[in-house]
Amino acid sequence: MTVKISHTAEVQDLIKEAAGFNSDQGSPRLKQLMHRLISDAFKIIEDLEVTEDEFWLAVDRLNKVGAHAEFGLLLPGLSMEHFMDLLQDAKDQQIGLAGGTPRTIEGPLYVANAPLSEGFARMDDGSEDDVGIPLFIKGTVLNTDGKPVAGAIVDLWHANTNGTYSYFDESQSAFNLRRRIKTDAEGRYTARSIIPSGYGVNPEGPTQECLSALGRHGQRPAHIHVFVSAPEHRHLTSQINLAGDKYLWDDFAYATREGLVGEARLLDNADASKAHGLDGRQFAELEFDFVLQPAVNADDEHRSQRPRAGQ
Amino acid sequence: MTVKISHTAEVQDLIKEAAGFNSDQGSPRLKQLMHRLISDAFKIIEDLEVTEDEFWLAVDRLNKVGAHAEFGLLLPGLSMEHFMDLLQDAKDQQIGLAGGTPRTIEGPLYVANAPLSEGFARMDDGSEDDVGIPLFIKGTVLNTDGKPVAGAIVDLWHANTNGTYSYFDESQSAFNLRRRIKTDAEGRYTARSIIPSGYGVNPEGPTQECLSALGRHGQRPAHIHVFVSAPEHRHLTSQINLAGDKYLWDDFAYATREGLVGEARLLDNADASKAHGLDGRQFAELEFDFVLQPAVNADDEHRSQRPRAGQ
Repeated sequence: MTVKISHTAEVQDLIKEAAGFNSDQGSPRLKQLMHRLISDAFKIIEDLEVTEDEFWLAVDRLNKVGAHAEFGLLLPGLSMEHFMDLLQDAKDQQIGLAGGTPRTIEGPLYVANAPLSEGFARMDDGSEDDVGIPLFIKGTVLNTDGKPVAGAIVDLWHANTNGTYSYFDESQSAFNLRRRIKTDAEGRYTARSIIPSGYGVNPEGPTQECLSALGRHGQRPAHIHVFVSAPEHRHLTSQINLAGDKYLWDDFAYATREGLVGEARLLDNADASKAHGLDGRQFAELEFDFVLQPAVNADDEHRSQRPRAGQ
Repeated sequence: MTVKISHTAEVQDLIKEAAGFNSDQGSPRLKQLMHRLISDAFKIIEDLEVTEDEFWLAVDRLNKVGAHAEFGLLLPGLSMEHFMDLLQDAKDQQIGLAGGTPRTIEGPLYVANAPLSEGFARMDDGSEDDVGIPLFIKGTVLNTDGKPVAGAIVDLWHANTNGTYSYFDESQSAFNLRRRIKTDAEGRYTARSIIPSGYGVNPEGPTQECLSALGRHGQRPAHIHVFVSAPEHRHLTSQINLAGDKYLWDDFAYATREGLVGEARLLDNADASKAHGLDGRQFAELEFDFVLQPAVNADDEHRSQRPRAGQ
C-alpha cells in the first residue's frame, strides 16, 4: 500500500516552516507559491512512489538544465509557455477582448536593442549569400478597425540557414538576423533577409535528453519571431511559421497556431531579382500583416518583464 | 474570477502530448511522472494566478540554481530531503522495521573513495593546527542485538573551521576531512580530526536568495556526516550534530534529529594531550556509536544510486 504522510500535522508544520510561514520577513507572495509547490511536490512523491534514486536523478538533471541555461527551452518543450498563451487567451475572452493577430510564445532567444530603422532593414549580414535564399518579408501593421498603424515597431528575429541564432551562436555577427523596423506613414514594413532553417534544440543538451526520454523530438518548423508594439496598442508577441515545413504542426514547443502560418513564395524572375540587386538569383517573398488590439491600459503596451539578453 | 482551462479537452490533450503519450518510444515511468508534473504545474499557475512576469522570473532563477549546481542544496532547504527520510521512516514502520541509529539527509557535499584505513584515521591535513581544536571521534558499530559489527565501513566527512568542505572548497587538500575507517574486531572506530564549524549556504548564491525571500537563513549547526555500511546490514546515511550549536534545532536543512546529537567534550588535560602528541593543547572527545539494522535484501546494504562527486 502506498504510504502517505503529507497530511500529518508534522509534515504540514514542516511545509509551513520551509515556506517561511514562521518568519515575518520575506515575500508573502513567494511564501504562498512555495507552500503550494512543496505541498504538491510531496503529494507527487507519495502518490507516484518516487524512489530515492529517482529523486536524486531529478536533482542531477535539474542542475544540468540550469547549467546549460535551458529552462527557457525545456518548459516550452513541456508545453508550459504555450499554456501561458492559452490561459491569456481565456482571460481575454472572459473580459471580451478579441481580434488581432494571435499571440504565441517568445522562446528563449530574443536579444534586446537590435538596430532600428525606418520602413526597411536588411537583416542578414551577407555571410550566407552563397547558401541562403534571399527573403523579402513585408506587410502592414493594422489596428482592429483595419486602419494602418504608422510608427509601430516591428522587432524581428530568426535563425540562419543552420537553424542557429546570433548572440547564442557566437560565430555569427552581432545582431545578425535581428532588426527593429518602424512602420512608415502607411503602416508598412519591409525586411530583406534569408529564409531561415527550422530550429532544433541542442542534441547533446539536457532538454533533448528529457524529450528523448519522453519519446519526443526537439524540432521546430522554420519561423520568424516578432514583437510588434505601438503607442496605445497592445504589445504583440508572435511568430510567422513557414508553410510547407514538415514540423509546421509537429512543433516541439507548440508555437504554431492558426493565423500564424506564412508562405515564403519562391520567385524565379530574373528581372525582379536584378531590380532587388540580387544578380538574378532566386528569391522569395513573404507577406504578413499584423493586427494590434487597442491597449486597455498603459501596461498593455509593453512586453512582459521577463529577463532578456541584451537588456 | 480565476480563469481555469486545465480541465478542458484541449489542455488535457496538450499535457498528454507533451508528456509523450502519443509516442511509443521513451520511458513509461518518466511519461507518468511528467504528466503529473505538468498537470500540477498548470493547476498551480491557474489557482494562484501566476503572472507572466512571475513565470519568467522563476525560469531565470531555476537557471541560476542549476548554473550554481545548487538544486541539491535548495531542495533540502525546502525540506524535501528531510521529507524523503520521513517517508522512508513511515515505510519502515508499515513493514515493522525499527531500531538502529536514525537516518538523516546526506546533503550535496559527499565525495566518494576517501582514503580507507583500519580502526583509526587522522582526517585533517594539519593545515588548521593553529586554529582548529583537535577532536577525537570514537565509537562502536553495533547491530540491533547490541553485538559489535567488525569490518564495518564508517565513512566520515565534515567541514573545516570555515565551514567549507574539501573538493568543493578547492583551497583544501584532496580528501581533507574525509576518511573511511574499517571497524576493528570489536567493532570500534577512532578518528582524529578538528572540530568543524557550522555550514552556511553561499550568501551570494541562488539558494540563499530564495531562502532570504522566504525570510529564512541558510545555516546549519556544526555536524559530521557519516555513511555506515557492513555486509548483511542495512546501509545507514546519517550525521552527528554537535550539542550547543545555536543552529542545532534551527537547521535550514532540517537534518538534526533526536538521537543524532553528539557532544564534543573539551578536555584541558595536559598529560592526555601529550599522550595524543598534541603538545599539551586543548582537545575534545566525541563518542558516538552507530547501530545498524539487519539487511532484509541485498539492495539494503548499499546507499542510493544518487550521482556523487568522485565516482
